[in-house]
Amino acid sequence: MRWAATYFPILDWGRRYDRSVLTNDLLAALIVTIMLIPQSLAYAMLAGLPPEVGLYASILPLVAYAIFGTSRTLSVGPVAVVSLMTASAIGEVAAQGTAGYLEAAVLLALISGVMLLAMGLLRLGFLANFLSHPVISGFITASGILIAASQLKYFLGVKIGGDTFYEIIAELGLRAGETNLYALGIGSGVLAFLYFVRLRLKTLLMSRGLGLRPADMITKAGPVLAVAATIAIAVMFDLGAKGVALVGTIPQGLPVPGLPAIDLELVRTLAVPALLISLIGFVESVSVAQTLAAKRRQRIVPDQELIGLGAANIAAGISSGYPVTGGFARSVVNFDAGAVTPAAGVFTSAGISLATLFLTPYLANLPQATLAATIIVAVLSLVDFSIIRRVWIYSKADFSAMAATILGTLFWGVEPGVVLGVVLSLVLHLYRTSRPHMAVVGNVSGTEHFRNIDRHTVATTPEILSIRVDESLYFANSRYLEDRIAELVAERPAVRHVVLMCSAVNAIDASALESLEEINHRLHDAGITLHLSEVKGPVMDRLKCSDFLEKLSGRIYLSQYEAMQDLGGDSDGIADSAAQVPSVIPGVRQ
Amino acid sequence: MRWAATYFPILDWGRRYDRSVLTNDLLAALIVTIMLIPQSLAYAMLAGLPPEVGLYASILPLVAYAIFGTSRTLSVGPVAVVSLMTASAIGEVAAQGTAGYLEAAVLLALISGVMLLAMGLLRLGFLANFLSHPVISGFITASGILIAASQLKYFLGVKIGGDTFYEIIAELGLRAGETNLYALGIGSGVLAFLYFVRLRLKTLLMSRGLGLRPADMITKAGPVLAVAATIAIAVMFDLGAKGVALVGTIPQGLPVPGLPAIDLELVRTLAVPALLISLIGFVESVSVAQTLAAKRRQRIVPDQELIGLGAANIAAGISSGYPVTGGFARSVVNFDAGAVTPAAGVFTSAGISLATLFLTPYLANLPQATLAATIIVAVLSLVDFSIIRRVWIYSKADFSAMAATILGTLFWGVEPGVVLGVVLSLVLHLYRTSRPHMAVVGNVSGTEHFRNIDRHTVATTPEILSIRVDESLYFANSRYLEDRIAELVAERPAVRHVVLMCSAVNAIDASALESLEEINHRLHDAGITLHLSEVKGPVMDRLKCSDFLEKLSGRIYLSQYEAMQDLGGDSDGIADSAAQVPSVIPGVRQ
Repeated sequence: MRWAATYFPILDWGRRYDRSVLTNDLLAALIVTIMLIPQSLAYAMLAGLPPEVGLYASILPLVAYAIFGTSRTLSVGPVAVVSLMTASAIGEVAAQGTAGYLEAAVLLALISGVMLLAMGLLRLGFLANFLSHPVISGFITASGILIAASQLKYFLGVKIGGDTFYEIIAELGLRAGETNLYALGIGSGVLAFLYFVRLRLKTLLMSRGLGLRPADMITKAGPVLAVAATIAIAVMFDLGAKGVALVGTIPQGLPVPGLPAIDLELVRTLAVPALLISLIGFVESVSVAQTLAAKRRQRIVPDQELIGLGAANIAAGISSGYPVTGGFARSVVNFDAGAVTPAAGVFTSAGISLATLFLTPYLANLPQATLAATIIVAVLSLVDFSIIRRVWIYSKADFSAMAATILGTLFWGVEPGVVLGVVLSLVLHLYRTSRPHMAVVGNVSGTEHFRNIDRHTVATTPEILSIRVDESLYFANSRYLEDRIAELVAERPAVRHVVLMCSAVNAIDASALESLEEINHRLHDAGITLHLSEVKGPVMDRLKCSDFLEKLSGRIYLSQYEAMQDLGGDSDGIADSAAQVPSVIPGVRQ
Repeated sequence: MRWAATYFPILDWGRRYDRSVLTNDLLAALIVTIMLIPQSLAYAMLAGLPPEVGLYASILPLVAYAIFGTSRTLSVGPVAVVSLMTASAIGEVAAQGTAGYLEAAVLLALISGVMLLAMGLLRLGFLANFLSHPVISGFITASGILIAASQLKYFLGVKIGGDTFYEIIAELGLRAGETNLYALGIGSGVLAFLYFVRLRLKTLLMSRGLGLRPADMITKAGPVLAVAATIAIAVMFDLGAKGVALVGTIPQGLPVPGLPAIDLELVRTLAVPALLISLIGFVESVSVAQTLAAKRRQRIVPDQELIGLGAANIAAGISSGYPVTGGFARSVVNFDAGAVTPAAGVFTSAGISLATLFLTPYLANLPQATLAATIIVAVLSLVDFSIIRRVWIYSKADFSAMAATILGTLFWGVEPGVVLGVVLSLVLHLYRTSRPHMAVVGNVSGTEHFRNIDRHTVATTPEILSIRVDESLYFANSRYLEDRIAELVAERPAVRHVVLMCSAVNAIDASALESLEEINHRLHDAGITLHLSEVKGPVMDRLKCSDFLEKLSGRIYLSQYEAMQDLGGDSDGIADSAAQVPSVIPGVRQ
């Protein structure tokens, strides 16, 4: 049942499950659950959704991923960037707070799940390669800034709209006068507390003699402490009556599984955002999973990850959730807490279910400013300006793709930002490869070697032009090949033979083949014979599938040296092998 | 004044202009003018425009190209494929026959001209590389079929709508009962005559003793004869009164130069079609120009061609024309008729002006079926099914891009067809390069060579994994590199060192750099040291711009052999150079 083991990794690890693993997984699940409760509420708020949707998205998707995913320790659920992208996508089709908005979010998860599943089954994971690293990091940095800015309204306790950085800042400026000082106090207090926890608490605890592990765990519980404390404050001082926005009543009980309403027009509208969410979620998730798997020398299978994430999103789509993916922070906590198998995810899912059933009444008085502060702390850790500088120093082309993504995301929108970055990286890649290095070569006297005439002292003859192409030939550079050869020939009126040295050509696609045919034809019209030398085996096999070899006015030589000897370009060669040299009359051979 | 000579090629050839060249150019211009009159009317009809617009597009644009173009013999003006694309683009924004339709066509020429000019000045000609040969040929074949089908309505003398092949054929079927037999007679007669002229007349004339040149010229005049004869027939039998559609009154006089009305909303709508028209027109035009230039060992400069075609289209846009480009048939006639310089284009322009002033009254009675027949004959020569088979045999990936273009163009539309083809070729290119060939290598005993362990008998040690990557590393394959190395390491628990042999790596972009950093980091977490060997000079220079070399847990070796000796993998090496081998403790070096 190799097939089953491939598509259901659970059959592999499930078989060897024992009590010690169970203990580890249960402990990890407990810790992750505590961390996930505030996080799920916060990210749902970021996506503009009711808080329970965040909890729902942390239940069934985890079970689905545990069955199909290949990472042992990846923790799947709502994450910041995908929540922002969800808000942006469904904000286009419905107003926040309406039933249509919620339905669209659930449908988005389902579409994204089906797309991921299809990509997994069709082995289309390579599509994620369209997203280069600079585009992804630029996008994540810009998203972090955008998310942090969008949360400021909860600090000020004002209601504003706006999707782009500029709009958000402009609206905040207009409404700053309406600031609710209680909300601002709660927000700033939590923010300061969380930064203290993150930056100082661990060292402090350890200096008091606590071990690394428990110190770490207490530090991770910081957001939960903040939640508990601010609920208490809100109740004590009746902040709700003083205009501080609270989370409000969260329906108790689990989501009823069922397909969302499927409106085909809406599916069409959401298709592109769903694809972007799927790809970006996949790339991020695989990157986290790879990093964790490497620490224990485990393997993750990217194509199966598509299936795992697809299943998780379909699960979100049929249980009133919204798009999910593998999150960095939660997965690291899961890993550090000692999770051994995806069963930890199943237990976490059970933990969140219990919380949804029994804990929600206590969360009604949670100030939204508390959640906003946890979001800001989480996303600002995603913002990485140093990488911008590093990419600038390393490659201007990559930098411009990154800069376009950042500026596009901040000032134009989340989707246009990504699309702009992807298009620009493709254009730049095409530009880079469209002008392959081509050298006119000559013979190094006394050897069989040929080198660039511009860099070495080599022997050439005016009748023969030898050109080495240092790149595979394909559609992006085939026209340059035509132009360049035409140029080189036009500069050398004495040329009667052109020899194309193909030692670095790994492939010739149909475009390049047609260009070679054109070059052959044009050179023939000009009375020049075209030859190839050092054609690699696979390339030669491919050329035999065409009629190029019959049409070629000249010959294919095994080596450039042989070509020169045959064509009479090597003076040594001529002397040595005059008998073998055929009399080549330009244009007559064809 | 090198600058001026680059941007104004006329300064180069104009300086050496003399009487003999003048005679040649004048004769060529006369022949081309005769050919262009029916062609201009026909292509305007194909674009859904009044006939005079075709004539206007053959006046000022030719002068503009003569000033800025680098081809000596390219003949610019209305062509079939661009006329079809024009009809498709402006059919979206206005109804045929309205003033808005005409205005949109003129504006389209202006936008396209500005785009071409901008691309030329910014040296963006490489953007045309997005259009692979299979996509272009597929598109032209599909366009040819579509155009031929769209002309059948003039044969039947019925009025139908429909943009896609299916719609046209379905409508024709419905209206076949309304066929006007006179129109059918004229159309079929002209079609038969033109095919006779094209396939037989030249041989016939030559067998009667006529020289190749005059026989050729008479053959080229076939369409003009058909025009004259059918005008005579239409007048004689008063076909207009019998329901045969005639060209009708053509305004006498030249277009008054002036900017068209610029509606920004319309500009936005037409931007994408204008870009596609520009790129396809450019690719076709450069290909014709290169072919002709090669015959005389002249050079054309693609970036300057963008400027030339841009100027021609701007000229069309300010003289009530519509998008133009370099045409194959007309350029070949120009070349064969002996044109030496672009001055022939200026004289042709004068010829068309005279025709517009004095000949138009005689064209009013020309049956549209005659023009339809000339179009069909012209475009069916563009349809090339053999290339489909050749590409199928040569490369399935290229074939699928071509097939998608053909089917998309025929059954979805002109623009979606091209876009589909371009996107598919990019996706397939990315797929092809996303999994570069990687070989685990071992030492060929007694040599310093390393070869693929799957193909050769080589020595390896379990602690050292040597991997050769046969491709430049960039965003499309950087994640595969991560996955593949993780996979290879996971299979080999004894591995302590990974050596990446970079002899075939010509470039490492920022994505690949980040992947290498990740690989280094993950291997380090797993207690494995990463080394590189045989890194090329330019790649090494680039890596020095990053902190990768400091972070690298292992070392950079000049050769793979040196790496194996140092790391103790080569048993010979160990014995010989035990003193030099440092004691490498995994993970400690960093």
